[in-house]
Amino acid sequence: MLLEQIQSPADVKKLSRAELQTLVDECRQALLQKLEAHGGHNGPNLGVVEMTVALHYVFDSPRDNLIWDVSHQSYVHKMLTGRQQAFTDPAHYDDVSGYTNPHESEHDYFSIGHTSTSLSLASGFIKAREVLHKSGNIIAVIGDGSLSGGMAYEGLNTIADENQNAIVIVNDNENSIAPNPHGGLYTALRTLRESNGQASDNLFKALGYEYHYLEAGNDLEQLIDLFETVKDTDRPVLLHVHTEKGHGYEPAVANHEKFHAGGPIDLKAGLYYADEQPHAATYSDFMQKYLFDKMQADEAIVTVSSGTPQIIFTPAQRQQLGSHFIDVGIAEEEAVAMTSAMAKYGAKPVYPVFATFLQRTFDQVAHDLALNNNPATFLVYLAGVYGMNDESHLGLFDVQFLSHIPNMVYLAPTNQEELQAMSDWAIDQTDHPVAIRVPATELISTGVADDTDYSQLNRNQVVHQGSQVAIFGVGEMLTRAQAVAAELAKAGIDATVINPRYLTGLDEALLADLPTKHQVVVTLEDGFVEGGYGQMVASALGTADVKVKNYGLTKEFHDRYDAEGLLTQNGMAVEQIVNDIKELMNN
Amino acid sequence: MLLEQIQSPADVKKLSRAELQTLVDECRQALLQKLEAHGGHNGPNLGVVEMTVALHYVFDSPRDNLIWDVSHQSYVHKMLTGRQQAFTDPAHYDDVSGYTNPHESEHDYFSIGHTSTSLSLASGFIKAREVLHKSGNIIAVIGDGSLSGGMAYEGLNTIADENQNAIVIVNDNENSIAPNPHGGLYTALRTLRESNGQASDNLFKALGYEYHYLEAGNDLEQLIDLFETVKDTDRPVLLHVHTEKGHGYEPAVANHEKFHAGGPIDLKAGLYYADEQPHAATYSDFMQKYLFDKMQADEAIVTVSSGTPQIIFTPAQRQQLGSHFIDVGIAEEEAVAMTSAMAKYGAKPVYPVFATFLQRTFDQVAHDLALNNNPATFLVYLAGVYGMNDESHLGLFDVQFLSHIPNMVYLAPTNQEELQAMSDWAIDQTDHPVAIRVPATELISTGVADDTDYSQLNRNQVVHQGSQVAIFGVGEMLTRAQAVAAELAKAGIDATVINPRYLTGLDEALLADLPTKHQVVVTLEDGFVEGGYGQMVASALGTADVKVKNYGLTKEFHDRYDAEGLLTQNGMAVEQIVNDIKELMNN
Repeated sequence: MLLEQIQSPADVKKLSRAELQTLVDECRQALLQKLEAHGGHNGPNLGVVEMTVALHYVFDSPRDNLIWDVSHQSYVHKMLTGRQQAFTDPAHYDDVSGYTNPHESEHDYFSIGHTSTSLSLASGFIKAREVLHKSGNIIAVIGDGSLSGGMAYEGLNTIADENQNAIVIVNDNENSIAPNPHGGLYTALRTLRESNGQASDNLFKALGYEYHYLEAGNDLEQLIDLFETVKDTDRPVLLHVHTEKGHGYEPAVANHEKFHAGGPIDLKAGLYYADEQPHAATYSDFMQKYLFDKMQADEAIVTVSSGTPQIIFTPAQRQQLGSHFIDVGIAEEEAVAMTSAMAKYGAKPVYPVFATFLQRTFDQVAHDLALNNNPATFLVYLAGVYGMNDESHLGLFDVQFLSHIPNMVYLAPTNQEELQAMSDWAIDQTDHPVAIRVPATELISTGVADDTDYSQLNRNQVVHQGSQVAIFGVGEMLTRAQAVAAELAKAGIDATVINPRYLTGLDEALLADLPTKHQVVVTLEDGFVEGGYGQMVASALGTADVKVKNYGLTKEFHDRYDAEGLLTQNGMAVEQIVNDIKELMNN
Repeated sequence: MLLEQIQSPADVKKLSRAELQTLVDECRQALLQKLEAHGGHNGPNLGVVEMTVALHYVFDSPRDNLIWDVSHQSYVHKMLTGRQQAFTDPAHYDDVSGYTNPHESEHDYFSIGHTSTSLSLASGFIKAREVLHKSGNIIAVIGDGSLSGGMAYEGLNTIADENQNAIVIVNDNENSIAPNPHGGLYTALRTLRESNGQASDNLFKALGYEYHYLEAGNDLEQLIDLFETVKDTDRPVLLHVHTEKGHGYEPAVANHEKFHAGGPIDLKAGLYYADEQPHAATYSDFMQKYLFDKMQADEAIVTVSSGTPQIIFTPAQRQQLGSHFIDVGIAEEEAVAMTSAMAKYGAKPVYPVFATFLQRTFDQVAHDLALNNNPATFLVYLAGVYGMNDESHLGLFDVQFLSHIPNMVYLAPTNQEELQAMSDWAIDQTDHPVAIRVPATELISTGVADDTDYSQLNRNQVVHQGSQVAIFGVGEMLTRAQAVAAELAKAGIDATVINPRYLTGLDEALLADLPTKHQVVVTLEDGFVEGGYGQMVASALGTADVKVKNYGLTKEFHDRYDAEGLLTQNGMAVEQIVNDIKELMNN
């Protein structure tokens, strides 16, 4: 196997053109085998096998710098830069992350995972190369939906005006995660594809790029020729390369959205193994049905997505919703400001979004939405320790970036009925922007409708009234608070358990009363403790005669962690908390 | 005076063409008189007088919706929508804010002040108009540097693909606050201007817009004709209108950057009155000289600006710095990721930025910079209560959005020598991304060089060691902490005073020792108390036998406040704090 002999890009350069094609085939085969066992970003990597081999054949990494946007498509790059074992030997599959990682290789420059940043990063390399009098090609690979992000345009803008070597590769696979993306950029790309790069109004030429189009973006020979043409250029060039997402694996070609990411894959069946098994009901399942039904009954509701429509609706549902569903592509800032304006105009916008991507809109939430106090609804998915566990996609600081913005109401439901009641209130009210933290754990249903009036802000739910000890359980940590209380009960301590529900304000009356019956207050949350909910409680009780202990995670980019393990590391196993409380009560 | 009879846009429509020109002249005259007395966004408003009169003559606000980007150029719009008195009667100058404001008028839809958001807001109006079956033109006015922001491109993208009425007006005044802006977009605009809109590669046509160019953007008649042509269009059109920034006031035309904003203006002299008077030394003055000198000695340093170069250097200094200074235009995300990459490559990037604009880069700080732990240096201007005091430009939540990001080091100097020592350390070290909160108050110099080793993170400075009471004074609040201590001393209480210096972590050893000698700990900070520095202290001391009281501001969009008044409202006058402390000591 050729691939197993590739220790560095130098080994790629030694191969004949025929051997290079064999290497392409072996890389794709290794990729499929790992995806079958492991899953990952399937379509994006399958689509750039030829491009990656050609890049490493023509350019000289790391003298030449390859910067991969998102870096979710860097698997083949890893194979060719000393990490093939992580793709050819199942025992080593977990040796590498799913993104570029400077700790793994000198060929990787950034730990990243959000889209649209590669051009800005490349612009920094270009400027530093200039002032430090260095040389080498600087190449950024962007596409697969990333080019719709505003930051990509800022980077395009900056690079275009540097009169020096810069190679931007637009990997145009016709997708923005979901196919048929909305937006003027996709019009421009399509027009260029359909004219073989000859369209009269060329966006990239307008910005100042030397522009090259390659229709056959999965043809190794043509890629090599193109890259050799522009190697060592002295100006900004843009290569518009038309690739096929999922190339070489028919089910992934036939269904770009489904096979964008996920797995493990049953390769023969063309399905994810998970599809073939029943799964426990989730809050996502519930919200999918709930929101679709609610939209049928109220045409003022519009659901907005920023390139991740699969969070909330199936392709069939989206089609049925017509103009009431809009996917703006990967453009989170656009999505947030758009919801603010829709709400101002009188519509009822709902924006389902992963917590890690919502952080891209801090200013839009603060300035365009919250300052204007417009009643948009956000559904925040995968926040907290049970969300995504890669360091580039953490949901561990949603409270930090969302809760301290004035006018925002951030709600943390703890069961299906609360989620439904909060959503009904949020969507129909007209007083506040509201975000709802949709739990990432298995669905809990009480079977009893929640008739709370959520317009009475910041009222906590006392789940159990006890004394001596009070335990706040934020969102998914409520069950842990209850487990702690159950253990304490065995020791004769009847602890109060509180579901705060609101993460943007405190229940002042409840807090004022707490010290009269309790000597210890603990708060449990599954994000960073610093800047989180618990510290608000500690501050409010700072002058009261009560001990307060805040539990949460250390402020770090925790990486590929096991949720229960991380909680235990942070002293949040039930037994640890129980012991702490007993000790605090004895001091 | 015609202007004084304008009670609403309906009154504008009644005027003859000759009267409209008179109205233009009166508006500009009123504008100049107010700018002389009051200052504001000078050049931007002078440049759009004709456009604004034409818009209100042709369109029917508020049936037709005018959305102004940034809305710093909305003064004439305010004159024509029932608020002329705020421009014609000095006693009413303060009746209106400097931005659009829905609390003032039904013709204003958003309280805003950051750039590049109008197109996204317009896209929301467009979608809401569609689903609610409403009608009316939706018009967004963007330019004056705003079009370089990535969010503007996201909005352009979305609107382009809506097959319905949308009118985007690009107010092209050749500027990005500073003249001669960098970037491909400005290449594209210049090429279009120079070809009278006929250039072969048209960025806007490529995205799908019907495009119109108007060279004479300060010609009332031509503006009216153009707007009448596109009124009630059924598709997205883009009007590229070439205006002159500062039109009608020669000094503002001659010096776009200086007269972008500021004042009051000595109209005759063509200077700001402030220029004619000596001013007390500021930290900004110090940093200007310090950084320029340091850059002369170290060619690895690169200073990056995102459209606000005047924060740090004069035009002459920038020219002298050559390639070591880059203004990427209004594109904060680009600036931050660029600094991360420059630092990774081995250069020493410095990014001076206003706190209110740094909030636009939460994700870039977290994901592109801090996750990669690259040693870029940010100089954060106008954070805290002494910064900008408009609700759209607050610097009151910098700790909230910056301090809780892992790996970041956020420093709050309290005098010139600390600022210098912190800056020297930050720029030359290679371990962390560092932000420095440059004080907005008058310069304090101790006269003694600060030889602290800032690589020893999170060590607080004990300014005075006392007992019973410990007072933390964050940054500019240190002088207040000292004033409180002085008052307490009169009552025989010898309070400890602490300068935390680091806002991204606690001095654990100091905190562990505090309760042994103190019964009351107070923290003073000049931003929101919720999610701030003090709450970290309260949490750390939550189980200790000590009372902790956190002082800071309520979480609100405080608007056009007086700093001392706001501090007093929040119980932070020295006397209030002293009384609180005495009371706490007696309980």
